[in-house]
Amino acid sequence: MPLHGQNLLGGERSAGRPTWKAWAPAQGKEVEPPFVDAGLAEADRAMELAAAAFPAYRRHPRIPDFLEAIGKEIVNLGNDLLERASLETALPIDRLTGERARTVNQLNMFAALVREGSWVDARIDRAIPDRKPLPKPDLRRMRVAIGPVVVFGASNFPLAFSVAGGDTASALAAGCPVVVKANKAHPGTSELVGEAIRKAAADTGMPAGVFSLIQGGNRELGARLVKHPAAKAVGFTGSLAGGKALFDAAAARPEPIPVYAEMGSVNPLFLLPGALAERGEAIAEGLKGSVTMGQGQFCTKPGVVLAADGPGLPAFTAKLNALMGAQPGGTLLHKGIHSSYEAGTKEVGALAKAAAKGVDPAPTQVRAAVFETDAATFLKEKRLREEVFGPMTLVVKCGSLDDLLKAARAMEGNLTATLHGTSKDLADFAPLVSLLETKVGRLVFNGFPTGVEVCPSMTHGGPWPATSDAHFTSVGTAAIERWARPLSWQNFPQEALPAELKNENARNIWRLVDGQLSKDSLK
Amino acid sequence: MPLHGQNLLGGERSAGRPTWKAWAPAQGKEVEPPFVDAGLAEADRAMELAAAAFPAYRRHPRIPDFLEAIGKEIVNLGNDLLERASLETALPIDRLTGERARTVNQLNMFAALVREGSWVDARIDRAIPDRKPLPKPDLRRMRVAIGPVVVFGASNFPLAFSVAGGDTASALAAGCPVVVKANKAHPGTSELVGEAIRKAAADTGMPAGVFSLIQGGNRELGARLVKHPAAKAVGFTGSLAGGKALFDAAAARPEPIPVYAEMGSVNPLFLLPGALAERGEAIAEGLKGSVTMGQGQFCTKPGVVLAADGPGLPAFTAKLNALMGAQPGGTLLHKGIHSSYEAGTKEVGALAKAAAKGVDPAPTQVRAAVFETDAATFLKEKRLREEVFGPMTLVVKCGSLDDLLKAARAMEGNLTATLHGTSKDLADFAPLVSLLETKVGRLVFNGFPTGVEVCPSMTHGGPWPATSDAHFTSVGTAAIERWARPLSWQNFPQEALPAELKNENARNIWRLVDGQLSKDSLK
Repeated sequence: MPLHGQNLLGGERSAGRPTWKAWAPAQGKEVEPPFVDAGLAEADRAMELAAAAFPAYRRHPRIPDFLEAIGKEIVNLGNDLLERASLETALPIDRLTGERARTVNQLNMFAALVREGSWVDARIDRAIPDRKPLPKPDLRRMRVAIGPVVVFGASNFPLAFSVAGGDTASALAAGCPVVVKANKAHPGTSELVGEAIRKAAADTGMPAGVFSLIQGGNRELGARLVKHPAAKAVGFTGSLAGGKALFDAAAARPEPIPVYAEMGSVNPLFLLPGALAERGEAIAEGLKGSVTMGQGQFCTKPGVVLAADGPGLPAFTAKLNALMGAQPGGTLLHKGIHSSYEAGTKEVGALAKAAAKGVDPAPTQVRAAVFETDAATFLKEKRLREEVFGPMTLVVKCGSLDDLLKAARAMEGNLTATLHGTSKDLADFAPLVSLLETKVGRLVFNGFPTGVEVCPSMTHGGPWPATSDAHFTSVGTAAIERWARPLSWQNFPQEALPAELKNENARNIWRLVDGQLSKDSLK
Repeated sequence: MPLHGQNLLGGERSAGRPTWKAWAPAQGKEVEPPFVDAGLAEADRAMELAAAAFPAYRRHPRIPDFLEAIGKEIVNLGNDLLERASLETALPIDRLTGERARTVNQLNMFAALVREGSWVDARIDRAIPDRKPLPKPDLRRMRVAIGPVVVFGASNFPLAFSVAGGDTASALAAGCPVVVKANKAHPGTSELVGEAIRKAAADTGMPAGVFSLIQGGNRELGARLVKHPAAKAVGFTGSLAGGKALFDAAAARPEPIPVYAEMGSVNPLFLLPGALAERGEAIAEGLKGSVTMGQGQFCTKPGVVLAADGPGLPAFTAKLNALMGAQPGGTLLHKGIHSSYEAGTKEVGALAKAAAKGVDPAPTQVRAAVFETDAATFLKEKRLREEVFGPMTLVVKCGSLDDLLKAARAMEGNLTATLHGTSKDLADFAPLVSLLETKVGRLVFNGFPTGVEVCPSMTHGGPWPATSDAHFTSVGTAAIERWARPLSWQNFPQEALPAELKNENARNIWRLVDGQLSKDSLK
């Protein structure tokens, strides 16, 4: 289907002159059609429309229908969507097919969460009029939508963390209108998905301003959205520099607002001696898969491997280096990531030994890489503890538990840490496990951190700089909590309470009634 | 018992030269003994001790015993504590006796919450090894302590929101060591309570650095605590200027941390026509009580009354003005609040009509006041929509629902909004109720916002500037959520999981297992 190249402002296309084109990284050239650069006026208009839609949308009974309709419209886009996304990202159709399924599943998961209803964390404490010294009032509380949300689409998940991705789905589920600033690396994909949302909104009777899509622009445009008085929260997945800029802009507002930025991570992988001795080569195979999957362009890619030196290590490194040395060149998502990867591997290469390089790549491609260093150098050189986005990893030889503890302590917050070990390793290295619990959002045992399961138990978040607020996750049902806040009603009559808090539990949700969880209706 | 005037650094008194004394506001003079001004080195030391205590404390099995022991030690201080607190704050012994009970109840409430255990929000999603296209891993998640917390004691609750108040109790309950920066308005009270915590920590076997008390100092000292790398979160109750300064300092760190600041509110009270006609005089009596309780020094004091003009209004205002005109002078908590109140009422008086003034106060006292204005002036003058801490309120005559809506829209975020109305009023003014739901943390119907119930359904928080993060409450069981973050374990063996996440539910807590709440043990 033809692309129009324009912004979507609350159900309408904005008039604007298209001036720039998407880049096809595998072809190394621009592709049709041209897109508009949104101006500050469009940013303001999108926020005003979102604010206007909020009262009607925040408790709209058809939110689950809307979310499911978005998923259906995305599927209806068929191969047009997959092909455009592949063109703009160089990601293969198979991967994008899987990502589309995940995107639709996420929308359906949030629809089911809202339909079931217990996510609002309803609490009821009934009055005790004759309590001494003072009567106890009737108090009832539940989560309510926070207000219009600005979402910045990620480049590395053009479907699952972009226009209708996890941030948008969870914010819409919470009852928040969403203004998406499209990632400039995939404007056509963004438009197609934006149109799917627009159609779903119209078909399910949503207020027009519930969704807008802003194309193009620069940092000033992004800051304008974040600083608009109507914006009440921000979702972002991308680089530390980008996330930090939004965080600072939001904190400097007259009314500061939260920014939920997922800014990546080095995801240390600890190889303990028992596991290395038992299955060093198998770990190397799994690690190679995790480092090179999607050309290493996952927030959870293991970028640092802290390996206990010992008899099992040489076989592991030999296998890893052989596999990575045979890895064909790959095309990265866009020119910015390509040049960052080239610069990053050069910086790491100046501080650590190049242990393996993938096969010579085509001009538009990069090569995989493994570097090696020792614990002392790793502790000394901050750059070695920072993320390089792409298909590389750094193996750090650690001589002792103490080396591993020091390395773990020196690392900043991470989304994940992974341990490969035997039961005996886990016991012997218990202080390391305990330390890691204070540094990351997810601990993985004898597996790999890539492949983020979308479910209630997932934490995709972690201490700074992994994310800007470790209280929350951007993947899984709990992601909705970012966009809602508690509100209490004191001594309100039944007819003026939301359905979730009336005595009759018509929605059949779990509620904490006088301190006890129950689904009972009250008298 | 004699006061030593020193800091408590992880169980030890710090050596230091006492240089300043507490002020007794009712007497208008300094009182013995002198206290030290903590230096930056003491601030650093306290944070280092807290960091050192964190690994042993964060899941300490005796946290509930520790919290209960603090309460017992506070009670053991007997009249010495009440008398010193009364001397330093001018609050009467009766009020402080009640506040002490609340403080102990809060500690016991968090002890019970931790002992029961479900607060960790445990979630288990079991593996599906044969899922297609990819196996599902075993994922388990629960809340864990965030790390050392800095608490700034409030002046207006020298017990319940100071050294062992709600912030400290909830942070200790979550497993976070606490460093309290004592409020300079009640250093003796702070020392007594600090010693109670110190004794409780020793008696229950807590690591020494679990608690420190920092006395005196200036803004630089507060900023030093907030900027220390070991600090992971901050709790604060006080002025907007004070909270904003800490918020900015925390956001500017290399690793930003959350600041949970409760910064006050004007707590608008809406008087709807039916209620005014039915019981205007009774509302005036209740309002007078709420405005003057504790000399109006509550974050939830109703500082603005938006009254629907009509036949019921004159009787209400006549009664309110008569009651407030007869109100005796009162002593405020400290000189800073006294002069802010004098300045604030002068500023409001320059913009609105003085409708009633309390009786002539003694030199150390202030007089209560009522001001009146119209909706147009209220909308025009920002100062009229801002808090004046103390026994005053402003009555705004509104001619229509539209006036009320405009006034509500013009107001910033508030902890509370109160509506007085009949059932018919609630229906007639439904758009106002709906709007207020987006502006405050708690809605009160036919009551008054002062008297904050401590229970699971309470929200003591709200959109900026009421608090710095509307996602959280500082009163009630949910206050613990500020100091904890989710952590996931993927494919961990049973023996390495925390008790809350093992198959056997030995703690008998509620858990979300494969999406269903249950207390079952798993096979």
